[in-house]
Amino acid sequence: VLVYLDGQVLPLADARISPEDRGFLFGDGVYEAVFARRGRLLLWEPHLERLRRGLAAIRLSLAAPEALAAVAEDLLRRNELADGDATVYLQVTRGAAPRAHAFPGPEVAPTVYLATRRHQAHPAERLAAGVAAITLPDVRWSRCDIKAIGLLGSVLANQAAKEAGAFEALFVRNGVVTEGSHTNVFAVTAEGRLVTHVADHHILAGVTRAVVLELARDGGLAVDEAPLPLADLLACSELFVTGTSTEILPVTTLDRRAVGNGRPGPITRRLREAYLGRLAELAG
Amino acid sequence: VLVYLDGQVLPLADARISPEDRGFLFGDGVYEAVFARRGRLLLWEPHLERLRRGLAAIRLSLAAPEALAAVAEDLLRRNELADGDATVYLQVTRGAAPRAHAFPGPEVAPTVYLATRRHQAHPAERLAAGVAAITLPDVRWSRCDIKAIGLLGSVLANQAAKEAGAFEALFVRNGVVTEGSHTNVFAVTAEGRLVTHVADHHILAGVTRAVVLELARDGGLAVDEAPLPLADLLACSELFVTGTSTEILPVTTLDRRAVGNGRPGPITRRLREAYLGRLAELAG
Repeated sequence: VLVYLDGQVLPLADARISPEDRGFLFGDGVYEAVFARRGRLLLWEPHLERLRRGLAAIRLSLAAPEALAAVAEDLLRRNELADGDATVYLQVTRGAAPRAHAFPGPEVAPTVYLATRRHQAHPAERLAAGVAAITLPDVRWSRCDIKAIGLLGSVLANQAAKEAGAFEALFVRNGVVTEGSHTNVFAVTAEGRLVTHVADHHILAGVTRAVVLELARDGGLAVDEAPLPLADLLACSELFVTGTSTEILPVTTLDRRAVGNGRPGPITRRLREAYLGRLAELAG
Repeated sequence: VLVYLDGQVLPLADARISPEDRGFLFGDGVYEAVFARRGRLLLWEPHLERLRRGLAAIRLSLAAPEALAAVAEDLLRRNELADGDATVYLQVTRGAAPRAHAFPGPEVAPTVYLATRRHQAHPAERLAAGVAAITLPDVRWSRCDIKAIGLLGSVLANQAAKEAGAFEALFVRNGVVTEGSHTNVFAVTAEGRLVTHVADHHILAGVTRAVVLELARDGGLAVDEAPLPLADLLACSELFVTGTSTEILPVTTLDRRAVGNGRPGPITRRLREAYLGRLAELAG
């Protein structure tokens, strides 16, 4: 399997990150995961825009991030992933320099890493039954709007979910569900309103989240970007999580209790179909 | 310069971290920085104990972390740093595996990295004048008790301090000063009490911090591990920061205002001398 590292395409086994890379020493970098179909990136523009915002937020200068689209599509071809669905992982760090917290000088170039993998579709049973989620205190920092690589809080939460037999851990901060360890969270209230946490500093403004919001509004749903108190979540009729790899996935069990009637709901299903339709449309 | 990586001592330029290392992809690891004199680690036991606690907190299994002392001292010798003062940097990550938030299987070995450098003594003027600090909102996660490598919040704060011409940024959470971007913080009140934030989840329990507390108590000072409201800090008579590389350093300017009379105070000086005396004692 080939990866891209700092201008070169090479076997993963030959790709060398310096131990002094600030990604390795400080988590000093940002990333994106982009969906591709038949070798073409889909929804690249919002990913690129978020990448630019993240780089600006951490004050990391990268020349021409827009050029990474061609790099990604070239890598997909070389890895023979241009025949189906794939995801491209893209990471930029502040480069390698002797360890010191403050930024290195301008002579230190950022590290740019891209990798690809075949997209794993959800097994049919998972979509039919929905998945389980657990809730955990949100111990993460208060700049979750930056798609930064320092993800230890999410790693520990995701592992706890896995050990509880769940697909996802939902973070609760001050009584409010913010997002999942690697997804955004949506609830459908008993009144049929779609609710998701506002895109402030406590969540990542997901690209899939934005598409879902647009599709919901276009479809005439009442939509609130508002706090999701955990207590309300337990009374909602539908719950689902979204993400580039996750797409839209119904959550039917929360902390071992059934959500709604315990089965994927009609609004979740409709939005999932609309989302997959949108991807098909974008792929042309 | 030689480094240690996964059982081998090799030139830094030959040391290869995989792009799939979870340190690089997730900030999934912990570290220590240990002081050494004439090739021997000082205060290794509390560093080792903290390393064990950190590994346990993130559930990373590492066989025989106590054996890293010999690895560190061997590396100091090979790097010809056994003649004076040095610091050893030591990092353990959850190893390299295809990217997924949850832990990889037990077949994935942790990555263990050690590097050494000559200790930089503070310039005499810095000690004579003290340093400047700024305050910034503490946006970090609420497990700062874990010495984790995901330090982007500290990196950005430290850089902001540097650009403000300051040595350190002090974090303020809910009106209380927790710690610096890479140091612990102590204040001496107008009544002559020594105050530092309690070692809860919002600060790292520094090894130097613990030694200073012990020396202060032994010296008959009244010591409080208690919240340090920012408002009180502005009225304190002395302020200083501590750390393995920082030792004890007086802070004489906070947010461009003089602390106390604007000069390093007698209690800070006494504690610094006692601390350097303790190091000399430990070095034998």
